[in-house]
Amino acid sequence: MDGSVRVPVTRVRGSDSSIDEDALAIEEPLEIRVGDRPLSVTMRTPGDDFALAAGFLFTESVIRAGEDIDNIRHWGSPNVVRVALREGVAIDWARLQRNFYTTSSCGVCGKTSVDAVRIAARKLTPFPVDAAVIHELPQALRARQSAFEATGAIHAAGLFSDHGEAIAVAEDVGRHNAVDKVIGAFVLERRSFEQTILVVSGRGGFEIVQKAAVAGIACVVAVGAPSSLAVELARETGMTLIGFAREGRFNVYT
Amino acid sequence: MDGSVRVPVTRVRGSDSSIDEDALAIEEPLEIRVGDRPLSVTMRTPGDDFALAAGFLFTESVIRAGEDIDNIRHWGSPNVVRVALREGVAIDWARLQRNFYTTSSCGVCGKTSVDAVRIAARKLTPFPVDAAVIHELPQALRARQSAFEATGAIHAAGLFSDHGEAIAVAEDVGRHNAVDKVIGAFVLERRSFEQTILVVSGRGGFEIVQKAAVAGIACVVAVGAPSSLAVELARETGMTLIGFAREGRFNVYT
Repeated sequence: MDGSVRVPVTRVRGSDSSIDEDALAIEEPLEIRVGDRPLSVTMRTPGDDFALAAGFLFTESVIRAGEDIDNIRHWGSPNVVRVALREGVAIDWARLQRNFYTTSSCGVCGKTSVDAVRIAARKLTPFPVDAAVIHELPQALRARQSAFEATGAIHAAGLFSDHGEAIAVAEDVGRHNAVDKVIGAFVLERRSFEQTILVVSGRGGFEIVQKAAVAGIACVVAVGAPSSLAVELARETGMTLIGFAREGRFNVYT
Repeated sequence: MDGSVRVPVTRVRGSDSSIDEDALAIEEPLEIRVGDRPLSVTMRTPGDDFALAAGFLFTESVIRAGEDIDNIRHWGSPNVVRVALREGVAIDWARLQRNFYTTSSCGVCGKTSVDAVRIAARKLTPFPVDAAVIHELPQALRARQSAFEATGAIHAAGLFSDHGEAIAVAEDVGRHNAVDKVIGAFVLERRSFEQTILVVSGRGGFEIVQKAAVAGIACVVAVGAPSSLAVELARETGMTLIGFAREGRFNVYT
């Protein structure tokens, strides 16, 4: 298992296109349980799940050392691990409850399956977009990034019309925050997401596609690569998902 | 506010070094409250906070439309926003409690300040590392990535000795997961983090420095840029933080 899976793709270079295969990073949710209580869900690439669970509990100060762990097993599913602590090792659940906020900014906390998102997603109405428009989107987004030039290290998200006009652009250290900011600007102004294209400067992961689907955005263009679960969710919701949009090329995954 | 801040830096190119200034992306926690209840904490770049809060509530299906919001204000701090819903708009807190898992995989959920991490951090013992070793680390990490070559889209983290030997390497779609995996492998084997260097393929954000500090890792090398809060936390814990380690150059931030 090298963490990747092959999917069909339409490669577009300039105005030429060809059908091919592409390798995507696998992304699936992992639920970490301590005893019988679920503590966290994270989107991860399968593999090293026990190390991931141990490292998460350790770096989040839930346990103090490896000695605190009696055993770790998969539990009813390859996407659930159960950590049993050694006798006498106590977890202060009240402190965790107090100190850990509920959150979903990682994209799936709270969603144990693609199904849950599919239910929350609005009905998507696909619309045609010229390849020439797609080719221009990444540069149009980049041109509106003020902090990127300074730091070389910030994500951007933009909402564009189907003709390629930028309607809203936001920057953030967090990919999902940049998306929440542009979508939120529309929400506050009561604007419709119909015929809009969401463009993101980085990868097109599950969290990005999920947020777009819930908002009712039918077309997502990522400068980076999509993940396996992002493609799956895009397919199920009828979204057009484009990746690696740069330098006169892009890949159409759905 | 363009989302960046200037900090002092030592730039190393080959064996030469010079003192300079560098612009970093600003990263600070934002707590989103609905009425008087805290719902989420996310690390974000300040700016567009109301849009971020509205977008988060909308894309996570907490609200159905902008009309559900009566007003949004900062609340006692520039890092807290309070969303007041319109009369008659109800939130099913029991559903949220059930559906949103507590999590901290975004790095700060549950930590409202750098102080909390400083308390959890182990005592760090700085150690000298040759510039020549630092120059080799990114390539050494890349050489051990199996999924990256296939997908072009996966994060890696590695623990290296102070002489540059790779001890453990992991890959994941999530930056923080890759770090948890290598640290967790050490935890499961009861290995010490003394004199180890954590190398990450992407940005050196707050979450990465936080996890390293809690583990007791005194040196972090990022191929990408650090954030403002990462530098602040590294300084307070006595960690050596290096960024932009690529192509024979790197920047020493602390």
